[in-house]
Amino acid sequence: MQNGNPTVASILDGNKRSIARAISAIENGDQEITDLLKQLFPNTGHALIIGVTGAPGSGKSTLVDALAAHYRSSGETVGIIAVDPSSPFTGGAILGDRIRMQNMATDAGVFIRSMAARGHLGGLARATADAIAVLDAARYDKVIVETVGVGQDEIDIVKTADVTVVVLVPGMGDDIQAIKAGIMEIGDIFVINKADREGVLRTERELESMLSIADRPDGWKQPIVKTVAVRADGVNELADAIQAYARFLKEDGSSANGRRASIAEHRIKEMLRDQLLKRALEKGISESEFKDLARMVAERRRDPYSAVEEILDRLGIL
Amino acid sequence: MQNGNPTVASILDGNKRSIARAISAIENGDQEITDLLKQLFPNTGHALIIGVTGAPGSGKSTLVDALAAHYRSSGETVGIIAVDPSSPFTGGAILGDRIRMQNMATDAGVFIRSMAARGHLGGLARATADAIAVLDAARYDKVIVETVGVGQDEIDIVKTADVTVVVLVPGMGDDIQAIKAGIMEIGDIFVINKADREGVLRTERELESMLSIADRPDGWKQPIVKTVAVRADGVNELADAIQAYARFLKEDGSSANGRRASIAEHRIKEMLRDQLLKRALEKGISESEFKDLARMVAERRRDPYSAVEEILDRLGIL
Repeated sequence: MQNGNPTVASILDGNKRSIARAISAIENGDQEITDLLKQLFPNTGHALIIGVTGAPGSGKSTLVDALAAHYRSSGETVGIIAVDPSSPFTGGAILGDRIRMQNMATDAGVFIRSMAARGHLGGLARATADAIAVLDAARYDKVIVETVGVGQDEIDIVKTADVTVVVLVPGMGDDIQAIKAGIMEIGDIFVINKADREGVLRTERELESMLSIADRPDGWKQPIVKTVAVRADGVNELADAIQAYARFLKEDGSSANGRRASIAEHRIKEMLRDQLLKRALEKGISESEFKDLARMVAERRRDPYSAVEEILDRLGIL
Repeated sequence: MQNGNPTVASILDGNKRSIARAISAIENGDQEITDLLKQLFPNTGHALIIGVTGAPGSGKSTLVDALAAHYRSSGETVGIIAVDPSSPFTGGAILGDRIRMQNMATDAGVFIRSMAARGHLGGLARATADAIAVLDAARYDKVIVETVGVGQDEIDIVKTADVTVVVLVPGMGDDIQAIKAGIMEIGDIFVINKADREGVLRTERELESMLSIADRPDGWKQPIVKTVAVRADGVNELADAIQAYARFLKEDGSSANGRRASIAEHRIKEMLRDQLLKRALEKGISESEFKDLARMVAERRRDPYSAVEEILDRLGIL
């Protein structure tokens, strides 16, 4: 590290302080970090990225910790990113970290970080992707991205993982809103956690019938794994299922490449959207003109559609 | 209506079929709808826009229906938009509509519509804002925007309302993840629904202590209303609280204007982002070039940061 800033060498070396600083720079949107990320990029592709999502209260964090402990016991290193799009503060997520820290912070083979929605949401998905790249370049064997909630943002974030695990709990079927089509579609592996609770069979049957409605185009049959994360029950089976899907992806090269290409397309588009807006606001219109325009729209003296057209006109890319 | 298409006159007349078609055109991203929206815009500003959000299972829909019934009994017309950012289909939300339809579809003074995330999420927030404008122009007295889940998307959507109601249920405090900072901040009014359940006092006390941490800059003291929506208990009190906040907004002109201006800024930026990306992909790069670029990024032969810079370069607005 020079001047306390993270360098490519310090990240590739796995220096935790450098990694933490690089992720903070990503969160803050520091311009200089882009150069570092460009140089780290060719060094990525080693880690298996595991996305874990599910409703609040499904015990995701405990499950992720148990899975991390499993990987550690077989000598693999683990990076964990806990993402909370609902919170503008990292504060809420930090609480969870504290509890975890007691168990894992002293383990050099584990890196835990929480990320929250500081500014705009698109920014969080992008920041998470960049943070994953940093952990990947730092040679963590598994990078687990865990979401706190379960909305479209969470879906956008976890679906960029190599393997997506959706966590349910018995009795969720009672609430038609709890199991959403969007969530069902992204799951490569389903977990019914808290499987010592009443209603586990019913939830399993409902899940099986939902999954049987449509076969996946790639031919993968999504397994259902029952776990009791607090006792680490079923965690071996979950790790096996993750490994099986990773192997499936490797063998079925064409669909894996298709998946990665569409993730890359989505990511480039998101980055492009953000950069375009930033430049449009820098070059197309002054801040005071923009505020005036917004005020006129707020007062209904102007409609937002023609306001946007005017800005585009000025940029000359109508 | 001419050729079955919605016209300004038919919307201002409150023709339900025209309204429904206009909202479908908004959802589909039809270009022609922009002209209609431009003309409708000066006719908006009549309705009170009420945003209702809360965790799945909190009974939001029942509460919204009870509130709508309350407004109807006092002769006011009500438009309801149920937004589900987690679902790529309107299907899930439609189920809820069907149940509602039995009670309210025959009432000419009520319009119910569900909207789901068809494409990109930013699109849904924008589509919802446009749909609200249509219902407002159609002279509904209250427009209630209800979200199915409770994530950043939902926050983005409901915070554009004049009044935001956050619905909790007893016992949620058990789950630190359930009550999120982001949600707490946007609530102008808090409802503890299912207030006949155990734990209501504890939830109320926790909520009070969370609200007491920080005073709002505008001086509004967020009320907590207890309801049992299935019996319509507490719905009068909720309507009173909404009215009180609407009055507060009217009297406290400066903060109300500030809120509306920042909503307009946010909205213009989102529209600008979408339009810029659309035009960049039309003018800056051909579809096959874009796909090639994404494939190179997916195969790690190229980093996404320089790929984005290349596209910006070609557009000449670097």
